[in-house]
Amino acid sequence: MGFDALALGQSAEFTKTITETDVVLYAGITGDFNPAHVDAVAAASGQFGERIAHGMLSAGLISATLAMKLPGPGAIYLSQQLRFTRPVKIGDTITARVEIVELVAERRHVRLATTCRNQQGKTVLDGEAVVLMPA
Amino acid sequence: MGFDALALGQSAEFTKTITETDVVLYAGITGDFNPAHVDAVAAASGQFGERIAHGMLSAGLISATLAMKLPGPGAIYLSQQLRFTRPVKIGDTITARVEIVELVAERRHVRLATTCRNQQGKTVLDGEAVVLMPA
Amino acid sequence: MGFDALALGQSAEFTKTITETDVVLYAGITGDFNPAHVDAVAAASGQFGERIAHGMLSAGLISATLAMKLPGPGAIYLSQQLRFTRPVKIGDTITARVEIVELVAERRHVRLATTCRNQQGKTVLDGEAVVLMPA
Amino acid sequence: MGFDALALGQSAEFTKTITETDVVLYAGITGDFNPAHVDAVAAASGQFGERIAHGMLSAGLISATLAMKLPGPGAIYLSQQLRFTRPVKIGDTITARVEIVELVAERRHVRLATTCRNQQGKTVLDGEAVVLMPA
Repeated sequence: MGFDALALGQSAEFTKTITETDVVLYAGITGDFNPAHVDAVAAASGQFGERIAHGMLSAGLISATLAMKLPGPGAIYLSQQLRFTRPVKIGDTITARVEIVELVAERRHVRLATTCRNQQGKTVLDGEAVVLMPA
Repeated sequence: MGFDALALGQSAEFTKTITETDVVLYAGITGDFNPAHVDAVAAASGQFGERIAHGMLSAGLISATLAMKLPGPGAIYLSQQLRFTRPVKIGDTITARVEIVELVAERRHVRLATTCRNQQGKTVLDGEAVVLMPA
Repeated sequence: MGFDALALGQSAEFTKTITETDVVLYAGITGDFNPAHVDAVAAASGQFGERIAHGMLSAGLISATLAMKLPGPGAIYLSQQLRFTRPVKIGDTITARVEIVELVAERRHVRLATTCRNQQGKTVLDGEAVVLMPA
Repeated sequence: MGFDALALGQSAEFTKTITETDVVLYAGITGDFNPAHVDAVAAASGQFGERIAHGMLSAGLISATLAMKLPGPGAIYLSQQLRFTRPVKIGDTITARVEIVELVAERRHVRLATTCRNQQGKTVLDGEAVVLMPA
């Protein structure tokens, strides 16, 4: 998709259940072995009462939606702001959503509102992304 | 570590090589099968000349450094700003670094400068994190 | 095992439980993030009432039985017909079975009936394989 | 996509490099530890001179293309014929392609020619799929 095919308000979504397997593999990739994610006993007596997924794992679903759907392959990821607003528990089904909120034609920059919601529709992550479209 | 043990300028680092396995598994966790990451032939004729790692994968190393080292387990990740400044290639060795730049005592908020550098010392990712310390 | 040791009616089986981990990793290997496999919420209101495994994952158990048991290592997999007859749910225990139904001596071809059944004995996959035995 | 939106000749592709990680994980999922796939020493003196990927792994890319692109989510996979025509080596980049060759309106069946080609354009797998479109 080229810059000229983009318009304000265009949006895309991607939904995936966050499994225990995802959390275990993500810990292995990143080295984030926070007990909140990998120690079921500690997590049971902790703030959330059970293990939660890494917040940055949900951010990966935003990245995937940008790369696979809108604007899609070819766009360069320049920046991302993230606010982690609620925990994601193992077994939660997360929907990442991206929506174009600004188009800067002279630099081919696209600014998108980015959110992740859980299966109850509650926001677990929000923020903004900026991507550069190819010439 | 409690809020009172923190001081401006404290820092921590974590270093890891980003392997092909990391990239393959990360695609599987997030659903991001951008050809730039999973198609060696397309990537060879693309902007970077070879496959690159997902930018958000490096962000996971920042998250890991916050969770494991400074401030360490117990802190709640509130927000993260990320600027992706250079590609990370498969085989690059990335050092995430976090440094305390602001302490807000009345809310127990800690603001940290966060960067990832490659094995040549070049910044591939920078930004800021805010975490909440437990009471 | 050489071609001359084979006889009509010889059979072999291999049984494995299909775990959520298998489904998550298989999605990552193949890029198949069909909601039927990776979105528990969508799958709950879909045709099967829950996530199902990728059909081609069960076909891999047939391939494994051919490669590991009958005829075993050294045979070359020439072709496979597959009919997907029932869904495989996460947690189902699948038994792949291969049985020799034709021996073509002049070409050292072996034709095998191939099925996968679940823990209730119901066929989830059937078809035929042809393999070439080494000289 | 509904049945009425489909037409003869429509096609879709998906490309992915087959990494060593893919082969190792696929062996773990299916139990196919044929030396041709997992024993580098035996494979070096074998028919292909090095380890090759499981043929059925490439079949998974066809399944992914059907599920993700054409006809896309919602279609039910009824059957697949596969002919394995060339080995896939670790590091090969495989393009799966599906093309509609028959539409059976009264049963909402779609028949597709399915192929996998390597980075040299050589066919490693061909065959046919039949899928059922939702009502």
